[in-house]
Amino acid sequence: MNAMASGPGGRTVSRHLPFGEKRDSRFYGQSILSVSQFDQVDLATIFEVAREMRAMVERVGSFDLLKGKVLTNLFYEPSTRTSSSFVAAIERLGGSVIQINNVRFSSVAKGESLPDTIRTLESYSDAIVLRHPEKGSAALAASHATKPIINAGDGPGEHPTQALLDIFTIREEMGRIDGLTITMLGDLKYGRTVHSLSRLLTLYDVRLNYVSPKILSMPSSLVESLAKEGTPQNEYRELEPVLPETDVLYVTRVQKERFENQAEYEQVRGTYVITPETLAAAKEKMIVMHPLPRVGEISMEVDTDPRAAYFRQMENGMYVRMALLALVLGKA
Amino acid sequence: MNAMASGPGGRTVSRHLPFGEKRDSRFYGQSILSVSQFDQVDLATIFEVAREMRAMVERVGSFDLLKGKVLTNLFYEPSTRTSSSFVAAIERLGGSVIQINNVRFSSVAKGESLPDTIRTLESYSDAIVLRHPEKGSAALAASHATKPIINAGDGPGEHPTQALLDIFTIREEMGRIDGLTITMLGDLKYGRTVHSLSRLLTLYDVRLNYVSPKILSMPSSLVESLAKEGTPQNEYRELEPVLPETDVLYVTRVQKERFENQAEYEQVRGTYVITPETLAAAKEKMIVMHPLPRVGEISMEVDTDPRAAYFRQMENGMYVRMALLALVLGKA
Amino acid sequence: MNAMASGPGGRTVSRHLPFGEKRDSRFYGQSILSVSQFDQVDLATIFEVAREMRAMVERVGSFDLLKGKVLTNLFYEPSTRTSSSFVAAIERLGGSVIQINNVRFSSVAKGESLPDTIRTLESYSDAIVLRHPEKGSAALAASHATKPIINAGDGPGEHPTQALLDIFTIREEMGRIDGLTITMLGDLKYGRTVHSLSRLLTLYDVRLNYVSPKILSMPSSLVESLAKEGTPQNEYRELEPVLPETDVLYVTRVQKERFENQAEYEQVRGTYVITPETLAAAKEKMIVMHPLPRVGEISMEVDTDPRAAYFRQMENGMYVRMALLALVLGKA
Repeated sequence: MNAMASGPGGRTVSRHLPFGEKRDSRFYGQSILSVSQFDQVDLATIFEVAREMRAMVERVGSFDLLKGKVLTNLFYEPSTRTSSSFVAAIERLGGSVIQINNVRFSSVAKGESLPDTIRTLESYSDAIVLRHPEKGSAALAASHATKPIINAGDGPGEHPTQALLDIFTIREEMGRIDGLTITMLGDLKYGRTVHSLSRLLTLYDVRLNYVSPKILSMPSSLVESLAKEGTPQNEYRELEPVLPETDVLYVTRVQKERFENQAEYEQVRGTYVITPETLAAAKEKMIVMHPLPRVGEISMEVDTDPRAAYFRQMENGMYVRMALLALVLGKA
Repeated sequence: MNAMASGPGGRTVSRHLPFGEKRDSRFYGQSILSVSQFDQVDLATIFEVAREMRAMVERVGSFDLLKGKVLTNLFYEPSTRTSSSFVAAIERLGGSVIQINNVRFSSVAKGESLPDTIRTLESYSDAIVLRHPEKGSAALAASHATKPIINAGDGPGEHPTQALLDIFTIREEMGRIDGLTITMLGDLKYGRTVHSLSRLLTLYDVRLNYVSPKILSMPSSLVESLAKEGTPQNEYRELEPVLPETDVLYVTRVQKERFENQAEYEQVRGTYVITPETLAAAKEKMIVMHPLPRVGEISMEVDTDPRAAYFRQMENGMYVRMALLALVLGKA
Repeated sequence: MNAMASGPGGRTVSRHLPFGEKRDSRFYGQSILSVSQFDQVDLATIFEVAREMRAMVERVGSFDLLKGKVLTNLFYEPSTRTSSSFVAAIERLGGSVIQINNVRFSSVAKGESLPDTIRTLESYSDAIVLRHPEKGSAALAASHATKPIINAGDGPGEHPTQALLDIFTIREEMGRIDGLTITMLGDLKYGRTVHSLSRLLTLYDVRLNYVSPKILSMPSSLVESLAKEGTPQNEYRELEPVLPETDVLYVTRVQKERFENQAEYEQVRGTYVITPETLAAAKEKMIVMHPLPRVGEISMEVDTDPRAAYFRQMENGMYVRMALLALVLGKA
């Protein structure tokens, strides 16, 4: 991990493990702020621990690795899914939670600065998960904290644990990441998820296809940045031409608010709905992913298709978060 | 339990225990959706386990029967009482909770279907308690879930754990259920509680009295349904004539919103208030029950009367829910 | 402890330990309602246990002293700080929590009386922490409860655990309390914190300075009451003359709502801001305290000054609350 040194902006990826370095100790006490802080070896470590967590949950449900540890789950914005996933993660490791929802209505929010809130809460707990509407808030929190901060989404910024669980899912479902063709579909302009994911995928040898309406296409700055890393990328308006070659179809939500008129929204939305008919043209061995919640982008009839990986993806979120907590708190 | 097979609507009650059947295994992994899924033997099993739970709590407070189990408490409507009771139940059994309140304000609610929410949350937890404003929502959730769903109220539908704790209270307070005269008072038209309770009481040999203003009387469809089961029922406008014969007086809240004008409400409300004077005409050995919260239907002066069973009824709720969790999660 | 007998109003302080009395047993099962219920020996007991708690947390993080105990955290008003502190306290002692936030929006609040809510919740839990907007609510709750009630703020009334952690902080930071000069700054009229603290300080031999604008000065009734106890008090409009002699500077928030016009507020607010420059005139060995949250009364540049004790003060809140829970639940 090198983000602590170089910051979320200026990443310097080292793809090779320094000789003799004990990897796990690199996580202990560290904050998880950005995908740019990880190299491929970090990911391999996280995934290995996540696999152990899955095996443990399947066998005994929970164990006392983090017994006595207290995690603060500090959510300035509601996020039932991410929040619940972290609660389950710490509880299945024997720890407990201080849950703080809807901070905007609470006294903490009444004019108190984020650093003050963080310094107070870290005096009660062993680590803090932070969801906050402002970009850079997690890094700001970490710069004032002596305990690990885990970024659970900082507005238009990053959501690194989502990107990690996405890549973990690809790895577990497809058996590998290198050599895959990954097609991202939907709102690629505002989708924080696909931005973090595509950045993290530059660590691997993949091909990326972007399918979106023109007004929701991948930001050119991001495309250029990925090009510099040597990742092949292609842009499309239709899914049809790229579906047959796709190994991973990553579907995102198209939000009505992004469109100037309702008709345009309905048209775009209808174009990109994944149905059993859509998947008839897809490989037999491929997967469909979605960060959820979905609001119609994938029909419920797809759920029983073995290629529908989105609920397994959710479950993987718990294992990856268990792994991060165990690593950061020094018990993995 | 037979509701899984026949559904909440079409119940087929078997009053006799099949030879050699191991009862507890009938609960393992099952959802608790409706009172109609239970027969008398099921109730005896639940009550026996609930008694063990009470003894355990009185002796040591908590024990680790469900250590490592994670319960999701998913409340689309606020319900401090029911929610807290389930939290206490799982915690006193050594398990932990994912608490989700006021879902309507959270991202899960933003257009996500109930089945998707359930499928996500069951990937984190071992069982889900669901309170939802729509009738049939618990059954819908269970039909998409692989983990047990416990219905904690589905709008105008059912609230089976309330009915179970009510009958358990009658049994523990009066020493028996068969042969009792049970008088229900107040809003019998909209009161979900008395509907579920009266349905479940058809498993026993009881007499039911209904006391309410005409506009809030027991729905005739329900009265007919109970008549077919052979339960004697009588309707009254005043409590006075039936109080002396009453073994269990079940008082419910009369809500102002049900009345067209304020004067009518005040009159009805005043008529049915239980005071120490009211109870002067009651048996020495009888009990007063109320699902709570009360807003004046029972005066606080009654609280010290040994016949006032409503706070013991609350406490029984915890024991019955502990029993259900233990049975459903296979540890009782 | 004598408040149980004499009530929050009429305190009778005994400064000497009755011969042969076993102190800890005086806490078991008792409510914590008002600072007036404690004498100096009670405080010494609480502080000794709090020190043990701190040592334990520093060494192992958590331990199972209250394993199996369930604490209800009942907050009618939001208070992330106090609420989180109690959650951390019970969890680090191995117990668990029923968390009830924003009761005003929940069904419990719908017309249910506080005594009914308390009687319900005590049937699920071993103790109840109560934050409520009305003065006297904690005492009302305690008078209906059979389990200990811990007052976490009853509107304009008291917030005894805050006063306890404040005095504990003074003791730990300065090594003693007797003989100190304590200067309170800011809004002394409405500040519940400084009222409870100054009352509790009459148990010790201290000098109190009050620095505030005239319209926010210490209530004369309180000043008279403290004078009867023999505590020397002096009132000022400026901090400058008393800062050099001050051992403890207790800063409070000045709320905009207290002023008739914005200009007056800005002027007062600006006058009392503590900066590194302010502290140049202060003793080398003194401390700056603040109940937090701050909104500008102390500049962030002061945070790195070793005399800035407010974050350590926060942390002490957890240890004092752990001590109270352990004492009240009979395990310290």
